[in-house]
Amino acid sequence: MRIKGTFLDEISHDIPHQNWGRNEWDKDFGSMKAVGINTVIMIRCGYKRWITFPSRVLSAEESAHIPAEDLVKMFLELSEKHGMAFYFGLYDSGKYWINGDYEKEVELNKRVIDEVWQLYGHMPAFKGWYLSQECSRKTGQIIDLYASLGRYCKEVSGGLPTMISPYIDGIKNISQYTSDTVRATGVSLKKHEDDWSEIFEGIKDAVDIVAFQDGHVDIDELTDFLKINKALADKFGLECWTNSETFDRDMPIKFLPIKWEKLRLKLEMAEKAGIENGITFEFSHFMSPQSAYLQAGHLYNRYSEYINDHKV
Amino acid sequence: MRIKGTFLDEISHDIPHQNWGRNEWDKDFGSMKAVGINTVIMIRCGYKRWITFPSRVLSAEESAHIPAEDLVKMFLELSEKHGMAFYFGLYDSGKYWINGDYEKEVELNKRVIDEVWQLYGHMPAFKGWYLSQECSRKTGQIIDLYASLGRYCKEVSGGLPTMISPYIDGIKNISQYTSDTVRATGVSLKKHEDDWSEIFEGIKDAVDIVAFQDGHVDIDELTDFLKINKALADKFGLECWTNSETFDRDMPIKFLPIKWEKLRLKLEMAEKAGIENGITFEFSHFMSPQSAYLQAGHLYNRYSEYINDHKV
Amino acid sequence: MRIKGTFLDEISHDIPHQNWGRNEWDKDFGSMKAVGINTVIMIRCGYKRWITFPSRVLSAEESAHIPAEDLVKMFLELSEKHGMAFYFGLYDSGKYWINGDYEKEVELNKRVIDEVWQLYGHMPAFKGWYLSQECSRKTGQIIDLYASLGRYCKEVSGGLPTMISPYIDGIKNISQYTSDTVRATGVSLKKHEDDWSEIFEGIKDAVDIVAFQDGHVDIDELTDFLKINKALADKFGLECWTNSETFDRDMPIKFLPIKWEKLRLKLEMAEKAGIENGITFEFSHFMSPQSAYLQAGHLYNRYSEYINDHKV
Repeated sequence: MRIKGTFLDEISHDIPHQNWGRNEWDKDFGSMKAVGINTVIMIRCGYKRWITFPSRVLSAEESAHIPAEDLVKMFLELSEKHGMAFYFGLYDSGKYWINGDYEKEVELNKRVIDEVWQLYGHMPAFKGWYLSQECSRKTGQIIDLYASLGRYCKEVSGGLPTMISPYIDGIKNISQYTSDTVRATGVSLKKHEDDWSEIFEGIKDAVDIVAFQDGHVDIDELTDFLKINKALADKFGLECWTNSETFDRDMPIKFLPIKWEKLRLKLEMAEKAGIENGITFEFSHFMSPQSAYLQAGHLYNRYSEYINDHKV
Repeated sequence: MRIKGTFLDEISHDIPHQNWGRNEWDKDFGSMKAVGINTVIMIRCGYKRWITFPSRVLSAEESAHIPAEDLVKMFLELSEKHGMAFYFGLYDSGKYWINGDYEKEVELNKRVIDEVWQLYGHMPAFKGWYLSQECSRKTGQIIDLYASLGRYCKEVSGGLPTMISPYIDGIKNISQYTSDTVRATGVSLKKHEDDWSEIFEGIKDAVDIVAFQDGHVDIDELTDFLKINKALADKFGLECWTNSETFDRDMPIKFLPIKWEKLRLKLEMAEKAGIENGITFEFSHFMSPQSAYLQAGHLYNRYSEYINDHKV
Repeated sequence: MRIKGTFLDEISHDIPHQNWGRNEWDKDFGSMKAVGINTVIMIRCGYKRWITFPSRVLSAEESAHIPAEDLVKMFLELSEKHGMAFYFGLYDSGKYWINGDYEKEVELNKRVIDEVWQLYGHMPAFKGWYLSQECSRKTGQIIDLYASLGRYCKEVSGGLPTMISPYIDGIKNISQYTSDTVRATGVSLKKHEDDWSEIFEGIKDAVDIVAFQDGHVDIDELTDFLKINKALADKFGLECWTNSETFDRDMPIKFLPIKWEKLRLKLEMAEKAGIENGITFEFSHFMSPQSAYLQAGHLYNRYSEYINDHKV
């Protein structure tokens, strides 16, 4: 069980920005590569008015602020340089689908997909798509949204793979703007299985990879959820990866790097559930030797020792 | 649009202390100077029982703890060494004016002003005063307080300039001890204009510079507020600066350095509103290469690149 | 008044982990020694399912996760290398005593004590025991718990000293998972004295050292509480140390290193109360030159200067 991919958290909802330039990113991709990461997933190309590339569509439709740097271009170039696969995360309006207008979210994103593919589709590191609208249950028309956007991405790009990373509606599924870290009850295994069975049925030809976040349930329950996720994905023909979070949801400071022992335990649980690929949210803040959180560099060292001690 | 000044956050209400000695401060003043900062504003000389210099007045009247280091003397010496103007921030009792006794706050501060001018008035870097009682609306006798203290500072010091840095009662004006980051409604443009028109009318011969904090409103509303601030200040003959905050109010961790793109946008908005001078709260935690928050050093680098690319 | 000891915060409840390996710990023990620290107290050997050594008892009884590293062994070896005394912190179930079953907490811990003494009792740095169940009042059968466990530790180990570190039920005694930092009222001096008089009476032959945490009361009240603690401990024949916290309870971020001026004031208050020994919670996050919180390294420098300027 190895971490093969990481999100790039631009634009971030809730993790303070590190203000890196190209040199820092270049160095970070090198650090990723050194511990076996070969895939980077830009979590979203934009959120509300903040965007990662000079999008005419989002500038015109959403009055988005044109950024000083084209991060998509930079990430693609650095991915090529370091031999990484780049997944492009779709736009999250933060409003249309939240307020029930899934069609508008889909229509807008189709125009973004067209624009992006025209701008960057020729770049060799462009290897897949990430559907950035996260959910934990079958809410609203989330199935239609995933199915429409997944199919459109594949159609435009000649069948490049698509990925989602849902969360589990567990006891730690609480707002990061609340001082609590847990709540009384989470979703049951049965309800989780029922919901996701229905979702997978509806998206199976549009989404290739599902990587559930592993931080919203009590660690004692995690194995059971991982096994359900794996069994369901197998049943419907999706690849099941784990998104092993490298930040700690159990601490008053939201959020700093996770304790290595917790991460190790989660990775070993995923392995026991038969899962072979892991991604993480995310390397650059929580696991990087150059993170502003120095705990992250030590986590990197512990993880490096671990994979050296457990060579396959 | 350049950042010309920074607060020195001693004594802090809410930002954890960095525990710097003279060497670190010396180095920091050098880093400030290198990006064009020529003014340092000590935000307050004391808060409750914590003070920055060995004040006989505050020791006797408020049982203040005599500090091991005389920070006022140190800041004045370092300002002189680095060619910076030093503004002295008045005492904030944290109680008298809060509980409605504005006169006591004024009387106590007049004695502090006398003491300070006697101790440090001869030092060449002493260039102005900062009235540290912050407000967002016309509350209590805030006009009388500003007018009395501003006039007294100028009278004692031969007319040195005085500054205030109010905040806007916007949707992000919430306690830093709440886990939320926004509230439902903020002050309207009209109400803000009415309140500050009345305040400026009352303080116009006592206060020279007003630098509104720019972080309490949604960034989409900021331009409108900046324009009102500028127009009002022009009308009443005050200098209008912006206090462009370099920490991020939108994140669960309260507070870490701001994302460079946000700061750039805010500075450009101020420029469009016709504002020419900016200060920030504050350099040493949020923008300094030696900050304990390493994101700050990267922000410094991004800002340095920006001002080099946009030389005037 | 010097800091002679520090907790080692493994397993932590609430402070994000630094992910150090043996090299970092080795270096940290050296940094401690250089400022006069000669005692390290492992705060607890386990909490719920997380443990610090490969315990057969806790693995069998509590399904504890066997850790990759034996931290107890490592801390004992490093203590010997650096000439430090190591205190072993008992297991905190996080449930039995919390839910009123003090006997189960005691019985389980007796088995842990047996196991630990057998595994590590021969190592020369093993110099004492820490009873990790913290309390602020006479709640439940806390007296019986301290008395039983303290006596058992001494009996098994040939009389090695035992320590507790209670907190005061003051205005800052609030959950770290609340965004507030103070509450309206705390325990009165009288009630504190009554409670602890009764507790000390009941544990006086089982506990040798009491080191009250100094961060839960307003700093203006601290001297009075310290004096009571000292007088009570003297009366019942316990050694009275202070646990001078090196993190800051007054800030929105929970928790970063304390301001040096606050720590200095607290140490001087303890000295005035006649207390001669101090420990701290804790060196490695809040006072270490290699802490992930860089403010800690500056605190270390300020403290070093202080003890050099006030040599006894």
